[in-house]
Parts: sequence; C-alpha cells; structure tokens
Amino acid sequence: MRDEFRADLQIVSQLLVDMAEGVRAAMRQATRALLTADRQSAETVIERDAEIDDLYRHIEERVCDLLARQAPVASDLRAMITALHVAADLERMGDLAEHVAKTALRRHPSPAVPAELRSVFTEMSEIADRMAVKIGSVLAKPDADLAGELDGDDDAMDELHKNLFAVLLGDDWPYGVETAIDATLLGRFYERFADHAVNAGEHVVYLITGENSPTSTN
Amino acid sequence: MRDEFRADLQIVSQLLVDMAEGVRAAMRQATRALLTADRQSAETVIERDAEIDDLYRHIEERVCDLLARQAPVASDLRAMITALHVAADLERMGDLAEHVAKTALRRHPSPAVPAELRSVFTEMSEIADRMAVKIGSVLAKPDADLAGELDGDDDAMDELHKNLFAVLLGDDWPYGVETAIDATLLGRFYERFADHAVNAGEHVVYLITGENSPTSTN
Repeated sequence: MRDEFRADLQIVSQLLVDMAEGVRAAMRQATRALLTADRQSAETVIERDAEIDDLYRHIEERVCDLLARQAPVASDLRAMITALHVAADLERMGDLAEHVAKTALRRHPSPAVPAELRSVFTEMSEIADRMAVKIGSVLAKPDADLAGELDGDDDAMDELHKNLFAVLLGDDWPYGVETAIDATLLGRFYERFADHAVNAGEHVVYLITGENSPTSTN
Repeated sequence: MRDEFRADLQIVSQLLVDMAEGVRAAMRQATRALLTADRQSAETVIERDAEIDDLYRHIEERVCDLLARQAPVASDLRAMITALHVAADLERMGDLAEHVAKTALRRHPSPAVPAELRSVFTEMSEIADRMAVKIGSVLAKPDADLAGELDGDDDAMDELHKNLFAVLLGDDWPYGVETAIDATLLGRFYERFADHAVNAGEHVVYLITGENSPTSTN
C-alpha cells in the first residue's frame, strides 16, 4: 500500500512537472507573440491552454482517486492537498499566458507594446520564465532554498511593475490611453504570474518543512 | 461515523457561508470607500481581510482533519474537494475587495473614480453584491438553478466592463492616463470577483449534479 502510494504520488508529481513546463512554454511563446507581433505564436498559446487545463483536471482526478483508495494521513495527505494547490496556481499561470497572447492578437498586426516599454516587458518575461523554471525544478526535486528564491524574483517583478507605471505616468507618454490600458493589463498579467509562482513555491516549502502554511498571495 | 461526518460537513458549510458573507461585506464596503472617498471604510476592508484569510485556513484545516479521520469516498469526498475550491475562490474575492479599497485609499481624499464612471462602477458593484449573496445562499442551501443564475450575472458584468472601456477610449475622455489606469484595474477587480463567483457556483453545481467538473474561469 505504501509502495503503491509512493508510485501514485510520483505520477502526480510528474504531471505537475509537465504542467509547469507547459506553463513556462506558454508564457515564453506569449511573450514572443507580444514583442514580435507574431500571430502564430499567439494562436498556439490560446489553443494549447486546453492542454494545461486537461493536466489540471487529470491531476485533480488522480488526487481524488488516491484519497479515496488510500486514505492517506499526515504528510501523505499534506502532499495531496499541496498537489491540488500547486495545480490550481499553475492552471491560473497558464490562463495569464493566454491573456498575454490574446492582448497581442487583439492589436495584431500592430505591436501591443511600444518601443519605450519593450525593455520592461522583456525583463518581466525573463523573471517570469526564471520563476516557471524554478517551480518545475522544485516539483521534480523538492528544494526549499530554491523555492525560497522565488520571493526575490517576485520583488524584482514588483520593481519592474513600478517602473512600468512610472513610464506610463511620465509627462512625455506619447501613446494615449488605449496603449496605456493594454500596458496596465499586461503588467498585471506578468505580476500575477509571479504571484502564483510564489504561492506554488510556498506550498512546496510547506510540504518540505511543515512550516508556515500559506494562503494565497494578494 | 456517518453522523459525525454529516456534523463536520455542516460546520465546514457554515464556515463557507460565513466567508461568503465576509466577502460580500468587504466588497460593499470597498465600493463605498471607492465611490465616496471614505477612508475609514477602505481601512476597515484592508484590516478585515485577515479575518477572511483566517476562515480560509480554518476551512482547509477542518477539511484535512476530516479527510484524515474519516477517509470519505464518493460524494462525501467530492464535497470536501468542493469546499477547498470554493474557499479558495472566496479568499481571492476578499483579496479583490481589498484591492478596490487600496485603490480608493491611494487616491484619498480625491475620488479614484470620476463622475463619468460612477454609474458603471455602481452597476458593477451591484452585480458583484448580487453574486456574493447567491454564493452565500447556495452554500447554505444547495440550489443548482440559483447557482446557474451566476452565468447571467457574469454576462452582465462583462457587458459593463466593455462599457467601461468604451468610456475610457472615447475621444472625449478628459482625465488622462492615471485615472484611466486606475479605472482599468478597478474594472478588472470587479470582473475577476464575478469570475470567481461563477467558478464557486460551478463547483457547487458539480457537487449537486455530479456533472461538468469545472476548471477555473479565464
């Protein structure tokens, strides 16, 4: 029974890793769509979000099946609940990548992001990518130190988010309200992506250490 | 054991109802803060978000305890997983009310919302309130028809969200980029509040009917 549980848990972990990889790929491709006005990339992200949703459903079914068959307690039960939380965060990260792609598509063939904002969105996307990689790594091999790095990444994301607003609110912002609205929403999508990554990381840390049960980030 | 499970489930349901009421009160008070530049209301929402977070943690602990002690299967297990989902949605709805309150506070003593947008935000808040009431009702007494009404409410919210952008992007928008950014984010907070309400409702319907397992909304 114990071996069976371990094997099942291993399958759930692998599904979570697959999900993290899918989410990372989605945000990379959505960013490409955004920064190069690449319609094909945008459409691919939107189409493939269903695969991430399917993984989420699959994980949830597996976990429910495991709870019903094996009735785990203590740390095994905690691992199951953690898997549900992390899967929910990853599912939402996939949605946020999709939102970025949809914004790119809505403005296509014009770029949704003007020249002045390319560098800040490039940096935001690099941080988002780094965070998605770390989530995948700590899911594959629990590592509280690596998961803890996500807080610093999130601080860097917040700083970029502030820089973005400084550009939008500068006296010399030449692009008007529509572009500012797009940039505001895009900024929020990257920032929320980072929040969910932090949240997923906190759940993994909780699983490893048993300390500081997380609620979701603001 | 069965009676004990029923009693425990009843406690979890009551905690969810309490959470829905707390979330409703938070969004009402946040809206008051927003539309009347009422600092005290804004601060109260921000302070009291911790109570909603505590309820969330409390529900999660109860559910984990129940899973460990009673090892429910089939519909009982589904009820437990549903409770976790609904609690997560409600927790996030509380955060969104807090974001509205923080936006009001950031502009205080100026109003964050100019005269032209008061009616759209008033209507958005009325729909949000109606949805929060319905969630509380279906949690207190499962009712798939009432839960199904949330889709229509969400459509109305989406329509208002479009109207909001139409005002912001009108040729005669006189308030500049900063006010447009605030309005964009506020619109998103109300719209996401509605999305989470729909999501929570879908989980309740799934629990009642066993059909159409939901993933989160976009």
